[in-house]
Amino acid sequence: MMTSQRVTLITLGVADLDRSRKFYGDLGWVATEEQEGVTFYQINGLVLGLFGLGPLAHDQGRPDAQLGTGAMSLAQNFATTQQVDDAFAAALAAGATALKAPEKVFWGGYSGYYSDPDGHVWEVAMNPFWPLNEDGSLTLPAGAE
Amino acid sequence: MMTSQRVTLITLGVADLDRSRKFYGDLGWVATEEQEGVTFYQINGLVLGLFGLGPLAHDQGRPDAQLGTGAMSLAQNFATTQQVDDAFAAALAAGATALKAPEKVFWGGYSGYYSDPDGHVWEVAMNPFWPLNEDGSLTLPAGAE
Repeated sequence: MMTSQRVTLITLGVADLDRSRKFYGDLGWVATEEQEGVTFYQINGLVLGLFGLGPLAHDQGRPDAQLGTGAMSLAQNFATTQQVDDAFAAALAAGATALKAPEKVFWGGYSGYYSDPDGHVWEVAMNPFWPLNEDGSLTLPAGAE
Repeated sequence: MMTSQRVTLITLGVADLDRSRKFYGDLGWVATEEQEGVTFYQINGLVLGLFGLGPLAHDQGRPDAQLGTGAMSLAQNFATTQQVDDAFAAALAAGATALKAPEKVFWGGYSGYYSDPDGHVWEVAMNPFWPLNEDGSLTLPAGAE
């Protein structure tokens, strides 16, 4: 029985698809499917897509809307603080905007934030309470509540 | 070897955590971990979290920022158009705002959009070219490019 508690596709609305393809490519991402106007990346259990901001607004049934960014953030967890620092540096090298350099945070981990060329926010983090699976996916520890 | 091509946590910034917990609860979601100020749901290969908008802006290193929504959307894919209609109806019943009622779309599938109480955009869709795995996760068909 499939639960509705799932996400199968994350779509990032982008102003310039070529610019975004280059940005994520510079981060080491490899497209799984590329079509006119859209790029899909296979990730852990779901898909991330790049799609024009205008077409996305149109697809959402509100073609004249000015869509905003920042209040939904995506995190990449890593096993070590060094990996977090490396990922943050790689993002800046690819043209990301630094929001917060990685630092120790109150919940016991290590975290930084950057935004991509369209303002989409990425967190890079190491959470010692959330070990990653071997394939990079994340399963919350049992009985954490 | 873990790839950096992954997302381990999706965080939705919310204005009223109780309201959002109720909204996602009404959709059938069950919290995996609940703490003061944050709720985490285990989903397919990653985690979705609800976190206050103010704390999220602070966490991002820009406490005075007005974070926006809409340009990053999350999709739930389903196996049938009936399931899409049911999910859309359930969301409206839980208080979602309809953006676009589900309809046949140009790429050969069936798709609708709603926004949650904070304006986070969800798509509900049936894509005949993207069969779901048994657990509800999504692996893009090989050789699609």
